[in-house]
Amino acid sequence: MSKGILMVVSGPSGAGKSTVVQELVAQTEGTYLSISVTTRSPRPFEKQGEHYYFVSESEFRSMIEGGELLEYAEYAGNFYGTPAVEVDKMLSEGKDVILEIDIQGGLQVKERRPDVVLAFLIPPTVEELESRLRLRGSESEMTIRKRLEIAEREYKNVSQYDYVVVNDNVEDAAARLQAILVAERCSAKRVNPKDIKKC
Amino acid sequence: MSKGILMVVSGPSGAGKSTVVQELVAQTEGTYLSISVTTRSPRPFEKQGEHYYFVSESEFRSMIEGGELLEYAEYAGNFYGTPAVEVDKMLSEGKDVILEIDIQGGLQVKERRPDVVLAFLIPPTVEELESRLRLRGSESEMTIRKRLEIAEREYKNVSQYDYVVVNDNVEDAAARLQAILVAERCSAKRVNPKDIKKC
Repeated sequence: MSKGILMVVSGPSGAGKSTVVQELVAQTEGTYLSISVTTRSPRPFEKQGEHYYFVSESEFRSMIEGGELLEYAEYAGNFYGTPAVEVDKMLSEGKDVILEIDIQGGLQVKERRPDVVLAFLIPPTVEELESRLRLRGSESEMTIRKRLEIAEREYKNVSQYDYVVVNDNVEDAAARLQAILVAERCSAKRVNPKDIKKC
Repeated sequence: MSKGILMVVSGPSGAGKSTVVQELVAQTEGTYLSISVTTRSPRPFEKQGEHYYFVSESEFRSMIEGGELLEYAEYAGNFYGTPAVEVDKMLSEGKDVILEIDIQGGLQVKERRPDVVLAFLIPPTVEELESRLRLRGSESEMTIRKRLEIAEREYKNVSQYDYVVVNDNVEDAAARLQAILVAERCSAKRVNPKDIKKC
């Protein structure tokens, strides 16, 4: 059986990553959404091993030292990371594994797993991004400005990514990510000419 | 409007290229199958400008000299080639253009249009290829042996191609080529970060 595809989906806040990735996984047999490990406290509705693996900071640090994480980062005093063991198990079972992480995380994964596919999800326009952030209604003007600045900075890194996927609507964006998975399975660099069977 | 994708579909005789490409074009809006120019005589059912553009050898030679062909080759004393003008017109209208040509032709196109996508269609196994060639019933044992030898030699060139698509059945193979077109439109190398609109 051929190995699955490891795909990172990044994109600015307000691009709709979570919704599109959930649609992709729901619509595509044999895909698996990686569960991150974090040191932050669970929110009331969050379940251990479903939304996150919740661990202590010392546990997290020992995972870093043991090389058990494909990437990690600190936000607002909490650590977030992607455990390698489950990802690699799914890939070896032929499943496609999706990581919903930021660009810095994506580039960290690329160093450790060079065959990763990096996809960048964007809203149709910057204006659309701004209006989506405002629609949330939960963030201050300063936060929105800051997010837009980060988005603009991130757009400049798009060239380090493999794909740019426009999220004009959830179904089409998910279908594009699905097409990327199919195409990547047919990629000549993943096919050993000696055992051409099925791409 | 963004430019269309130029895709070459090659593969050994018996891989089912024509059937799959016709299915692809029939199922995919905005795709166009390039019509070759040839010096061979039309067969009774063949129409000028539909199956081929039939031209004289001197007309063909002047197309070569004028740089009007994306690729050309000689088989059994006849010339076959791909006229650039129509391909480029379709691409500039945003249509995806499919060329059904051999590996040598594909690599010639790559030199002239470096952003071409090269896809190699193969039967599930070499045994399957052999049995398909025999099923045709129209070719001698020697011809079949020769085709299998050529196929084996071509398999070694797969690494120069971008994609390897298995033709286990026509619908699935056409769907894979369709997915490749979608993915290539999202390819970061085709997207100008300054005018990210739609991939």
